[in-house]
Amino acid sequence: MTELASLPTDPQALAEATAAAMYERDHAAQALGMQVAQVGPGSALLKMSVRRDMVNGHQICHGGMIFALADTAFAYACNSGNQATVASACQIDFIAPAREGETLEAEATERVAAGRTGVYDVSVRTADGRMIALFRGKSHRIGGSVAGSTPA
Amino acid sequence: MTELASLPTDPQALAEATAAAMYERDHAAQALGMQVAQVGPGSALLKMSVRRDMVNGHQICHGGMIFALADTAFAYACNSGNQATVASACQIDFIAPAREGETLEAEATERVAAGRTGVYDVSVRTADGRMIALFRGKSHRIGGSVAGSTPA
Amino acid sequence: MTELASLPTDPQALAEATAAAMYERDHAAQALGMQVAQVGPGSALLKMSVRRDMVNGHQICHGGMIFALADTAFAYACNSGNQATVASACQIDFIAPAREGETLEAEATERVAAGRTGVYDVSVRTADGRMIALFRGKSHRIGGSVAGSTPA
Amino acid sequence: MTELASLPTDPQALAEATAAAMYERDHAAQALGMQVAQVGPGSALLKMSVRRDMVNGHQICHGGMIFALADTAFAYACNSGNQATVASACQIDFIAPAREGETLEAEATERVAAGRTGVYDVSVRTADGRMIALFRGKSHRIGGSVAGSTPA
Repeated sequence: MTELASLPTDPQALAEATAAAMYERDHAAQALGMQVAQVGPGSALLKMSVRRDMVNGHQICHGGMIFALADTAFAYACNSGNQATVASACQIDFIAPAREGETLEAEATERVAAGRTGVYDVSVRTADGRMIALFRGKSHRIGGSVAGSTPA
Repeated sequence: MTELASLPTDPQALAEATAAAMYERDHAAQALGMQVAQVGPGSALLKMSVRRDMVNGHQICHGGMIFALADTAFAYACNSGNQATVASACQIDFIAPAREGETLEAEATERVAAGRTGVYDVSVRTADGRMIALFRGKSHRIGGSVAGSTPA
Repeated sequence: MTELASLPTDPQALAEATAAAMYERDHAAQALGMQVAQVGPGSALLKMSVRRDMVNGHQICHGGMIFALADTAFAYACNSGNQATVASACQIDFIAPAREGETLEAEATERVAAGRTGVYDVSVRTADGRMIALFRGKSHRIGGSVAGSTPA
Repeated sequence: MTELASLPTDPQALAEATAAAMYERDHAAQALGMQVAQVGPGSALLKMSVRRDMVNGHQICHGGMIFALADTAFAYACNSGNQATVASACQIDFIAPAREGETLEAEATERVAAGRTGVYDVSVRTADGRMIALFRGKSHRIGGSVAGSTPA
């Protein structure tokens, strides 16, 4: 992983450094071709193209893949302060099906942070703005940091 | 896909024929190495090993992969009567982290079916019985069938 | 109930007329002392004071009463077009306890409407802006109207 | 409140003593006419009749009242070990409407308990067994006890 001699103190720079460190070891996000398009304090925008191996038995994008994208945007948003944080519960409403070849965009924003827990909303849309799913996640800080936390 | 000259009328045999037809075109379940260990009227048991490419930036199994397994078990359970059915909403509570190399088992059961909607519960456990996640999904029948529904 | 010789066609006026007709027969909202402070197309703001008979065994406002307020704001928002609509599922995250004597405000907004279903978000805050709960509801149109639908 | 010279150590007796102490100060449960029909370690059965003041603008039992009953059954189940515990999040699926005059029964059972958190399922049915709602709640232990915890 990235060893950071000293972590940035600016929230935006810290969010970017944390996202870079997370992504480097995030085998799942990489394997699904997700890209971190944007990250900030409490927010993240991720993109993923629906590949053939993401399609289910109804010939539409597997709900698990839509969830995985939303959940990953949530993870980058809730870890953006470099305090290791995991999902404790998530809820997703599927609005419309997504098709092979479409690019999905998941935008995560913090709704509330209180003590060690937080609530984040994620919208998943197609590139042309069609709403695919609405996701809400509850986060739980587990102690430790993300970037610079582990010897390489 | 599998062309079935005539579909079974026995519910257990129909569940198995439907699962086989679904799995054949379920690229996502195949790509994630999921196996349909058991299926019956309103129920399904699926297995998946946590591979390196399913691990996230915290070095534990990505929540999206745990969800994908649970959601797939839900799909096989709620389509077991060969009436095409999709998820309209899902909710997951993450209980404990899963590690690379562990095999996860997702057991889906129907809690209630009313008209075109249903509610299904899925438990995700490790092979040695440790609870990883509890999932609840709401299903919606969309019309059409699964097996034997599309010309090959 | 209110008999409306002719219903307004302006969306804001229709929302107000519908809310008035609903509230008149909404015994539960009345019994809990809820007030419809504002209503518009797809939105509603309701207020409720936490009475002694809303407090639970931990001496804080019963979660069911907080839910009831949020759910009612959701109901007024999703029925604002005078098409009879009910909740099919709801989810609530409790952020902080509310105390006897506090006034709670629930603000509901439509996140998405697609066919006969919709998703609404509700925030419950104290009068001084402290976040108490975040609620998300899924609505389902059942046919029929609200105002002017039933002979008095 | 009930002052208990010494609390029972038997789990069933402790659950009953805790429920009695909770109910005595549970103004909300009392005001809604709820009765604790049964309680045990990790479980509870509550009953409530749908009164006229629980009916909403669609002339059916207000979803908030159904939720309140389920949430209360959840509370009595998750506090049954006399360790003060609150709801952190809840989710409800409404299956069928309930009518004025019907008696509802909410049965809560523990699905999993891990550290300070737990997951409980509640089914709400009419007396003749019709399923009205399925509820799932996540609990969080806050420290302190229920029975015998506060000077009278």
